[in-house]
Amino acid sequence: MTRRIAICAPSTPFSREDAARVSALAEAEFADLQLIFHDQCFATEGHFAGPDAVRLAAFVECANDPEFDAVWFVRGGYGASRIAVDALPLLGPSAHEKQYLGYSDAGTLLGLLYRAKIGLPVHAPMPTDIRRAGGEAAVRRTLGYLAGSHEGLEPSLDGRTPAAAFNLMTLAMLCGTSLMPDLSGHVVMVEEVAEYHYAVDRLLFHVTGCLASAGIAGLRLGRVSDVPENDRPFGCDAEAMARHWCGKTGIAFLGAGDIGHDIDNKIVPFGLA
Amino acid sequence: MTRRIAICAPSTPFSREDAARVSALAEAEFADLQLIFHDQCFATEGHFAGPDAVRLAAFVECANDPEFDAVWFVRGGYGASRIAVDALPLLGPSAHEKQYLGYSDAGTLLGLLYRAKIGLPVHAPMPTDIRRAGGEAAVRRTLGYLAGSHEGLEPSLDGRTPAAAFNLMTLAMLCGTSLMPDLSGHVVMVEEVAEYHYAVDRLLFHVTGCLASAGIAGLRLGRVSDVPENDRPFGCDAEAMARHWCGKTGIAFLGAGDIGHDIDNKIVPFGLA
Repeated sequence: MTRRIAICAPSTPFSREDAARVSALAEAEFADLQLIFHDQCFATEGHFAGPDAVRLAAFVECANDPEFDAVWFVRGGYGASRIAVDALPLLGPSAHEKQYLGYSDAGTLLGLLYRAKIGLPVHAPMPTDIRRAGGEAAVRRTLGYLAGSHEGLEPSLDGRTPAAAFNLMTLAMLCGTSLMPDLSGHVVMVEEVAEYHYAVDRLLFHVTGCLASAGIAGLRLGRVSDVPENDRPFGCDAEAMARHWCGKTGIAFLGAGDIGHDIDNKIVPFGLA
Repeated sequence: MTRRIAICAPSTPFSREDAARVSALAEAEFADLQLIFHDQCFATEGHFAGPDAVRLAAFVECANDPEFDAVWFVRGGYGASRIAVDALPLLGPSAHEKQYLGYSDAGTLLGLLYRAKIGLPVHAPMPTDIRRAGGEAAVRRTLGYLAGSHEGLEPSLDGRTPAAAFNLMTLAMLCGTSLMPDLSGHVVMVEEVAEYHYAVDRLLFHVTGCLASAGIAGLRLGRVSDVPENDRPFGCDAEAMARHWCGKTGIAFLGAGDIGHDIDNKIVPFGLA
């Protein structure tokens, strides 16, 4: 039975050329999947894939359409927070029957949907990963998951402890807002890209401080990549930072998580895998 | 009567040359002020002005010494969050009798001290502002305030509505943590420097979302300066962002605040001026 996957852009725009590459890969290797790129993926206005109202309408349309089995966010880059809260009251019964997949800025919507117990949010590679060298592997991982494979799951997931995965900045911005899900009992995985080491430390201060009283099962640190060079070295690496802040806040540091802004980014279904 | 001002570095280091320039300015123009730069201002370890323990000890020493009337933070740059919580239980009775002055990353300590009702935290230019072109004006503003002048106060302060001022990123990182002060009834001023427009919008999403239920009197937007150029324009300016997020969260947008990472940065005593 064919599964139909709607693709929309709550944050920044994609290109038709790269969409065609992703569609071709899916057609060649996943006969049971049908990808439908919403035209809104290619809209642009300033930073965003179209105005807030256009991005909102496309997401709600995809989520509410009973013909779709999943909504795949095409790309991150910032913008989902501008539509997330407005989207919530517009989501109907069909929105509850779906998987929602993405990462980075799309984590804003995953977090809100998880908080609202709507569908199954999944941290997973996005169509935009086709742009990375070897990015077919990342795209294929999500397509495989959508087709029913568990091969791409993050390896520490044990099937008994609920989990969630976020870009560190994205989670930091959700903390304390009305979008923040209840992560009690969860293993929380975080990854970061293109932030100075001092900024990573600052984000870990904030996130561990906010999660200190949330009763999470522990923190796993994904990859912290493409760190810009500062005028001086920070003095310790990201794992030492995570250990420091977990220690200060009484959060269990559980080691590495196999997620990141790269082609090896693994799949983390929110809750139990 | 001479007022003695202790200067320490909770975040990043200063230089002896620039300290000498600030001291010379104070000696020449403010006969009633005596500046004492703690040697820790010139310590370095990685990103920081010495290890956490050294920065902590210097701050606590300055705050607890009854010979000092005020503690002036020499510079921001990140690091205060690593010593703030540990400092709190170490502060004795003399710490309550002091003014604490600074901005940018030093706002982390101002926020915590305000939460704990210890002394008078004051958003104010720092010794490091001597490095800006025309920076003597900024340094002079704080020295004047320490000597009893009200000339450098932020002009919207009305003496009836309590206020607080923060770097936007610094406040964003405090939100939801055990360092966050109660800002109910307060005019909250924020300013930012060297962040992309999309990052400013993201921070405003977070801060207004966190403050939505805090009952603040309203938000004033200081200057958002040195915005890096992105690969595409964001689509609106910082004031439009502030209006957007205040509108979404039911916070009154009160207009501009006369603060920023520049020589015109005005003084905002926390609470009533």
